[in-house]
Amino acid sequence: MAGSIYGTLFRISTWGESHGKGIGVVVDGCPAGLEIDEAYIQTFLDRRKPGQSAFSTQRKEADAVEILSGIFEGKTTGTPISLMIKNTSQISKDYSDIAETYRPGHADFGFDEKYGFRDYRGGGRSSGRETAARVAAGAIAVKILEEMGISLTTYVRAIGPYTIDYDKFDKEEITRNALYMPDAECAALAASYLEEMKKNLDSAGASVECVIRHVPAGIGEPVFDKLDAKLAQAVMSIGAVKAVEIGDGIQAAKLNGSQNNDAFYIEEGKVQKKTNHAGGILGGISDGSDIILRAAFKPTPSIYQEQETINRKHENVSIAIKGRHDPIVAPRAVVVVEAMAAITLVDEMLMNCVSRMDYLKKIYER
Amino acid sequence: MAGSIYGTLFRISTWGESHGKGIGVVVDGCPAGLEIDEAYIQTFLDRRKPGQSAFSTQRKEADAVEILSGIFEGKTTGTPISLMIKNTSQISKDYSDIAETYRPGHADFGFDEKYGFRDYRGGGRSSGRETAARVAAGAIAVKILEEMGISLTTYVRAIGPYTIDYDKFDKEEITRNALYMPDAECAALAASYLEEMKKNLDSAGASVECVIRHVPAGIGEPVFDKLDAKLAQAVMSIGAVKAVEIGDGIQAAKLNGSQNNDAFYIEEGKVQKKTNHAGGILGGISDGSDIILRAAFKPTPSIYQEQETINRKHENVSIAIKGRHDPIVAPRAVVVVEAMAAITLVDEMLMNCVSRMDYLKKIYER
Amino acid sequence: MAGSIYGTLFRISTWGESHGKGIGVVVDGCPAGLEIDEAYIQTFLDRRKPGQSAFSTQRKEADAVEILSGIFEGKTTGTPISLMIKNTSQISKDYSDIAETYRPGHADFGFDEKYGFRDYRGGGRSSGRETAARVAAGAIAVKILEEMGISLTTYVRAIGPYTIDYDKFDKEEITRNALYMPDAECAALAASYLEEMKKNLDSAGASVECVIRHVPAGIGEPVFDKLDAKLAQAVMSIGAVKAVEIGDGIQAAKLNGSQNNDAFYIEEGKVQKKTNHAGGILGGISDGSDIILRAAFKPTPSIYQEQETINRKHENVSIAIKGRHDPIVAPRAVVVVEAMAAITLVDEMLMNCVSRMDYLKKIYER
Amino acid sequence: MAGSIYGTLFRISTWGESHGKGIGVVVDGCPAGLEIDEAYIQTFLDRRKPGQSAFSTQRKEADAVEILSGIFEGKTTGTPISLMIKNTSQISKDYSDIAETYRPGHADFGFDEKYGFRDYRGGGRSSGRETAARVAAGAIAVKILEEMGISLTTYVRAIGPYTIDYDKFDKEEITRNALYMPDAECAALAASYLEEMKKNLDSAGASVECVIRHVPAGIGEPVFDKLDAKLAQAVMSIGAVKAVEIGDGIQAAKLNGSQNNDAFYIEEGKVQKKTNHAGGILGGISDGSDIILRAAFKPTPSIYQEQETINRKHENVSIAIKGRHDPIVAPRAVVVVEAMAAITLVDEMLMNCVSRMDYLKKIYER
Repeated sequence: MAGSIYGTLFRISTWGESHGKGIGVVVDGCPAGLEIDEAYIQTFLDRRKPGQSAFSTQRKEADAVEILSGIFEGKTTGTPISLMIKNTSQISKDYSDIAETYRPGHADFGFDEKYGFRDYRGGGRSSGRETAARVAAGAIAVKILEEMGISLTTYVRAIGPYTIDYDKFDKEEITRNALYMPDAECAALAASYLEEMKKNLDSAGASVECVIRHVPAGIGEPVFDKLDAKLAQAVMSIGAVKAVEIGDGIQAAKLNGSQNNDAFYIEEGKVQKKTNHAGGILGGISDGSDIILRAAFKPTPSIYQEQETINRKHENVSIAIKGRHDPIVAPRAVVVVEAMAAITLVDEMLMNCVSRMDYLKKIYER
Repeated sequence: MAGSIYGTLFRISTWGESHGKGIGVVVDGCPAGLEIDEAYIQTFLDRRKPGQSAFSTQRKEADAVEILSGIFEGKTTGTPISLMIKNTSQISKDYSDIAETYRPGHADFGFDEKYGFRDYRGGGRSSGRETAARVAAGAIAVKILEEMGISLTTYVRAIGPYTIDYDKFDKEEITRNALYMPDAECAALAASYLEEMKKNLDSAGASVECVIRHVPAGIGEPVFDKLDAKLAQAVMSIGAVKAVEIGDGIQAAKLNGSQNNDAFYIEEGKVQKKTNHAGGILGGISDGSDIILRAAFKPTPSIYQEQETINRKHENVSIAIKGRHDPIVAPRAVVVVEAMAAITLVDEMLMNCVSRMDYLKKIYER
Repeated sequence: MAGSIYGTLFRISTWGESHGKGIGVVVDGCPAGLEIDEAYIQTFLDRRKPGQSAFSTQRKEADAVEILSGIFEGKTTGTPISLMIKNTSQISKDYSDIAETYRPGHADFGFDEKYGFRDYRGGGRSSGRETAARVAAGAIAVKILEEMGISLTTYVRAIGPYTIDYDKFDKEEITRNALYMPDAECAALAASYLEEMKKNLDSAGASVECVIRHVPAGIGEPVFDKLDAKLAQAVMSIGAVKAVEIGDGIQAAKLNGSQNNDAFYIEEGKVQKKTNHAGGILGGISDGSDIILRAAFKPTPSIYQEQETINRKHENVSIAIKGRHDPIVAPRAVVVVEAMAAITLVDEMLMNCVSRMDYLKKIYER
Repeated sequence: MAGSIYGTLFRISTWGESHGKGIGVVVDGCPAGLEIDEAYIQTFLDRRKPGQSAFSTQRKEADAVEILSGIFEGKTTGTPISLMIKNTSQISKDYSDIAETYRPGHADFGFDEKYGFRDYRGGGRSSGRETAARVAAGAIAVKILEEMGISLTTYVRAIGPYTIDYDKFDKEEITRNALYMPDAECAALAASYLEEMKKNLDSAGASVECVIRHVPAGIGEPVFDKLDAKLAQAVMSIGAVKAVEIGDGIQAAKLNGSQNNDAFYIEEGKVQKKTNHAGGILGGISDGSDIILRAAFKPTPSIYQEQETINRKHENVSIAIKGRHDPIVAPRAVVVVEAMAAITLVDEMLMNCVSRMDYLKKIYER
């Protein structure tokens, strides 16, 4: 079980390596009748595309998506949607040094232990490039959510020591700076910090936040498939993520109950909450307020500094990783977090469609 | 899909409510030939059992487990193991106040939105009591891991503002204090803090840590079913958990690559790491060092203080929750975290058995 | 993976052995709001109960079902429904002969090869008794279908050389004779035949047919999860079934296209078919006409005659199986076929609820 | 859930329509280290390729397979294998008549009911062309089985009224005649029969048989995932299959126990059976003898004769289906049956790898 299939009803099956012919995804279970085209999906891929800023790998990939199946007359048919993104800029020689050596902070050693050998070109299947397939599928999920009136806003919340100031939060700013931060001042400080990291042949960690608005209350399965539990798997499955938080997350452990509980109240006939420490999920089920999740990304493990490590023959060696790599993962991962959150939420919303006899009757009463 | 089944090969199916006849679990996929008996499983349930300290509900439950199937002549047969724990202390009147009112911080509102109504007695299916079934299944998973030479150590790392001092870490201490903390001094401070919370009719949050030793390198599936991703779902699916961290977790986001990367080296022919910021998992696959995971628990939402909220008729009301509830979730949840981690690791280790053709040949060459 | 969980959205997890404490099932994913009680489920179990006729084992089992969870105020809550049937008549000495010897036609040898050993008491997990748990879950599935206006009629179609005459089909007759045949004359002939088999210390094969009425057109997933494919697994998973047919089944292979195609036509605004060779399923999707499926049951492998076989030490031996066993499987299996068909159809109907964007909007437009 | 993913550990995800850009499959869970190349897979696709005989559609498709991922240095890496077959001969005008009319015996009506509309070009997703993706995946499964010493022989057993004579069974003959029959005389008679059908603008049904040799005893899960149950789903999921039999199948229902039971005996230290009525599977688990399964195929529903039917507006109309279609499905489906059987058996063999603690120790003792 290579574990490259995700979801229960809205299922995505991804494939491809960094330096193979391409990468792709098959989406099985997208409801019929959704309007989708390549141009729309491309807008998501463009948010992840390399080579867009000084802080992103200079590998030039068009990352052009092609729809191979599942769309007819501009709409999904309900059958599998196959999407492919061809690799166009693979330069294998860049990666020749890692064939025999295990890079610190990478899965190289684990792959060899697990599979006996590995496609070492650019990280193979463990390359960050794998996430492009998730983004393509995520674009479809976001479209489904949009049709339900649900929207996602995702951005970089912190880079190294610099965290955004929520009082200066400007949604429009997210796409104006290369770091996808909603606070221009913080983005400028972070940019300087990254320049310094680059000079030091080093890299930086970061935090990404995703806010999902207008999710109806009642979504999520109450035990193992809690909405937050599935979101945690979804987000932690992105390479380099080391922590996932919902709402106040880690801080909740330091509060007491009277501080942390969110009071419900009714206003204009609608259920509201005075605070949202819970991040929109209680007992694994959405409560109708904003869903807030955060992912902590470790610094890019590929750095130009000389590092101690071992090789395949289990000898002590050192390595200075050449080639093209980002000093920070998070800006390009913003859309990946959004994609995984959207895919997970769609799956849970589909599952919720069969939770009540009166829902069944709504479908089958004709 | 009520989402009460967890796992792919080692699958657990739990059932039961706080105030029904009992709770239980069916384990489907436990390998044949494992020695298991009720007394062994009971030792795990006793770690979660209520009424053991001043900081735990005074509900008296024997939490006695009964094996209903799947064991023959003292060993697992490879067929489903059904375990039941009867409820013996359900006093429904304690919970009559919550039938019509939505408790802040609880899933009451979400359940009603999702299912149209709910078993309100003691939280019903969303009661913490549900986790006893996980613990029973977890005992079996821990036994499998033990047979592979793998051990788990789980404890409370922090309560409110008090965090253990790793220099004073004493494994034996964990079971000596009621708070399951490996640092007696910190446990004493935390106990005072909890006394204060109780006086204030309030509750406290906490952090639980689990360390898994001697996991072979190569365990975990590289994309969606990353070992850390599955652990994240597993742990976040425990009620009250709001964050999950692997290794340095949140702190990793503040480090730079040269600090955060763990250097491999060879010593006495074995692969070692100089540090373990990664918490034993790289790219979703175990690297052979200790797996370290942490869960942040929010404070118990049930508090005796008067709180503002709404009722089923969507009117503004207030509630002071009566009955028996713990001022802190974490000490009793230690074994729940351990159970979920063990179940998840067993599942991934089973999946890994089919990752290579030479493994298949090992099984089928007779 | 013991394979004791079935279904995708309506999932059943069964457990238990012939001579253990009992057998049971957990139903995860039953929609909330369905009225269910023990008395209703019991009516299904009574159809399978042993000791009801001369052609059924004289083992006396009340087969009394107990609901352990998932029902509140008479209705399903949407959370797992746990059902248990205690074993009350297990006499282990009856089966002592089979501990060391592999019965021909049974799974004894296979179990030992697979698991290394087996619970040999009464067949353990491979006993026909396992199907009682399916019947209990099936009762719930039938109730869901009834709420949708769908009904199932299941009966014995043939025993040994005797096949019912469809011109004499009398639905009421099914429950009037011990063989569950809808043709009294045929039932009488079959009864004589079975008496002869008993005298000869032998057993008989049979065929069971299930007709499902008023299934809406459009149910079933078009590729691997075709409605007929899932029904085939469902029915073939019942011990002793060696063939499954849909509609004309085997005969379809001998027809030509102009004979076998069913002509659609419109009458009173409704889509009708002039014939139903297809048995209500085309390309894996229901066409709105009756779904017809048939299962061929091999003769009971347990016979009192002396048979050649081998033992655990792999020595040639002979065995004459003592104890209580039916000369024919099918009459008691009628309700098992119905249960498995219902469970499968419910699962596919739930899956179909998420096949279209307009269905989603029906659920989420509030 | 479009149901286009099959398997538990060896999982295939297929996509594509008859007249889209192509069709394909992603295989997730193929063990690492298997030697595979395009030429090998192509030999399987060539067995299904159209245009090879007078009894096969004259549509010319190269059906050339391309490996897009998962193979490195000639071997599987353990990560997803993506295979694509481009469509090169789609002539949409051939199918313009079926856009508005529901063809008898086809899924057209069901698709419209299920999804609200359909890709009508050549049957879209319900085209037989979909099975090419299964064949490509099946080639990989067959290769895994070969490495375990297991072989499959698949052929047409009967066409219309003509059934092969087992006394004249000649394995070499299978690939010598266009009908894939192992009996030259029978093939000649069947060919004449098919010529007659073509003249009559009609089509014929047929039966396909698959024999799997050297499967170890002990494979299969004892309850819902019985080996025969999974094979039944696998084979019934092929369009046009209306019945599945294991061993004596339907005939078993007419035998009595003393005839149908297969006697075990030991010869040269090996477990043998005197007969094989069971077709190699008892209680859902392989018994070490040949696995025998049969599929009954209905006659091709597309015929040139005028047929009564309805259109999308629910009016009575008639249709004479133009275009390219085979007068018989079975010869080209031989390799599809083999593929589905192989995929299913591999999946069950992988699952069996984790059935015993001593198997686990074999893998993890290093």
